[in-house]
Amino acid sequence: MRLGLDIGGTKTDAVVLDARGGVRASVRVPTGIGPAAVLDSAERSVRAVIEQAGTGLVAAETIGVGIPGMVDPDSGRVRHAVNLGVEELSLGAELSFRVGVPVRVENDVKAASLGTYHLLGLTGSAALLNLGTGMAAGIVVDGELQRGSGGGAGEIGHIPVDPKGAVCSCGQRGCLETLASGSGIARMWPSKAALPAVELFDAADAGDERALAVRDTLAAGVASAVRVLVLTVDVQTVVIGGGVSNLGGRLLSPVLDVLRDWEHDSAFLRSLDVADRVRMLPAGLPAAAVGAALIGTTGAPEPGGVGLPVPQD
Amino acid sequence: MRLGLDIGGTKTDAVVLDARGGVRASVRVPTGIGPAAVLDSAERSVRAVIEQAGTGLVAAETIGVGIPGMVDPDSGRVRHAVNLGVEELSLGAELSFRVGVPVRVENDVKAASLGTYHLLGLTGSAALLNLGTGMAAGIVVDGELQRGSGGGAGEIGHIPVDPKGAVCSCGQRGCLETLASGSGIARMWPSKAALPAVELFDAADAGDERALAVRDTLAAGVASAVRVLVLTVDVQTVVIGGGVSNLGGRLLSPVLDVLRDWEHDSAFLRSLDVADRVRMLPAGLPAAAVGAALIGTTGAPEPGGVGLPVPQD
Repeated sequence: MRLGLDIGGTKTDAVVLDARGGVRASVRVPTGIGPAAVLDSAERSVRAVIEQAGTGLVAAETIGVGIPGMVDPDSGRVRHAVNLGVEELSLGAELSFRVGVPVRVENDVKAASLGTYHLLGLTGSAALLNLGTGMAAGIVVDGELQRGSGGGAGEIGHIPVDPKGAVCSCGQRGCLETLASGSGIARMWPSKAALPAVELFDAADAGDERALAVRDTLAAGVASAVRVLVLTVDVQTVVIGGGVSNLGGRLLSPVLDVLRDWEHDSAFLRSLDVADRVRMLPAGLPAAAVGAALIGTTGAPEPGGVGLPVPQD
Repeated sequence: MRLGLDIGGTKTDAVVLDARGGVRASVRVPTGIGPAAVLDSAERSVRAVIEQAGTGLVAAETIGVGIPGMVDPDSGRVRHAVNLGVEELSLGAELSFRVGVPVRVENDVKAASLGTYHLLGLTGSAALLNLGTGMAAGIVVDGELQRGSGGGAGEIGHIPVDPKGAVCSCGQRGCLETLASGSGIARMWPSKAALPAVELFDAADAGDERALAVRDTLAAGVASAVRVLVLTVDVQTVVIGGGVSNLGGRLLSPVLDVLRDWEHDSAFLRSLDVADRVRMLPAGLPAAAVGAALIGTTGAPEPGGVGLPVPQD
């Protein structure tokens, strides 16, 4: 039995997976802001999901946590989780101490990529292209999360693709993130609507010229990110996730149009079937929590052993 | 004992590696043009290097071949090796038949990346950024060549980074290859010199404004390719190889200048130490032939045979 947490800016999701990886229980609690409150809500979600699963917090369990920010999986430390009001937190050690179970920590997008791979039953290589406030990807090859040499794998949001593009929060210009992300939409389509992306797509559907142009730019940015993933890692599948992906088919359709236009102009791209590799993450799947649960188990106990997980190397 | 071939547009290199991976013998013969002539020169290089190594072509040996073009490693077939006058060739089967030893075939840049990793004693993850007529990279993680789902991993030369850039041979616009490759130099600095890149750098050193601009563009293109590799795969080391890399420090220096300028403007890039990951492939190393020899051992005969190399895992 494996337990996974996804600590987001507003809510913390917790899931319990059974031995076959099926979701046996899941809960959602509001995330507290600041290190102590984040730990409180994390602990609360653990106790709630355990109760829902009808089981106890026995030593044999492992907990994995996905959280935004810079994560050192070896130490379980998190830095710069800005939306959570966390500058630095020994999340792994602190939560382990509170619940008495070893806790492993991973960046939330990386966790979500592993969860996506599992929940969608993918094989071979795949990337989750996460369009949240920013843009990042998680890459999984043969079921294994690819972190790269220092955890930087998948940071494609900061690849510049236009020397004359907008200045990015990272200090560069024309990054993919400035085109295809929540912050990119906010820049290109300033709005007070609760769901600016929906307002944008509604306006585009209604024929608003400016909205159409922004939608095209967004779709081309997503398509460019897909192209980077295919031409660099040659992932078989690219799943588009993150908040912006709640647009579903409304986003997928213009992205595929862009990719097919490019394939029309380039036999090289056509030979790679780029468009055919893309799909949307169905809304509402607890991908990051499930992925976190799976991360908690890698380097798991010897078969037949009593219990405690061995740290990943 | 492992034998590796690098079939290039003008010469075919062959090496014999001893059991520890040291280069025991190496020869170079002119490459024939057209399928039959390519096979003839390949066979000639095999017989010559075996003679130099002072050993026989016993059944226990394996041969790996690196060759430009589209390679299917499973069948040993090569397609579109344009410079060799080869539209299609069952290189693996044909050469196996001629020399009586199993032959494995791989794309030359991919083979060279594995050879570079081995010859430079690299560990962790690394990419060979090959600047030949075109641009492509080979990616090696923990000693294992990364092919991607269909052999497309490392095709970063066709990632566009400027919507207003030059049209690329692939049909797209502003690809990295249009900026940083032999063909890119030929476009930006048309020349009848034997070594156009050297002429370009000499002119830049002499203060020619146009040459300085082209050199800057080239350096920025190489730096952009490095950035793509670091931000997508997070390789620890990027080795710059291929014909253009014969410029050595003359190329490395402006590339590092560009990367350091970018790091100056972006704390994010600075945190990744991008510039510190870059080095040049020393000229004259038979990286592709050595890599091919190493590839020749993967998927080799069952262990337990007499002197048979055990497949790498």
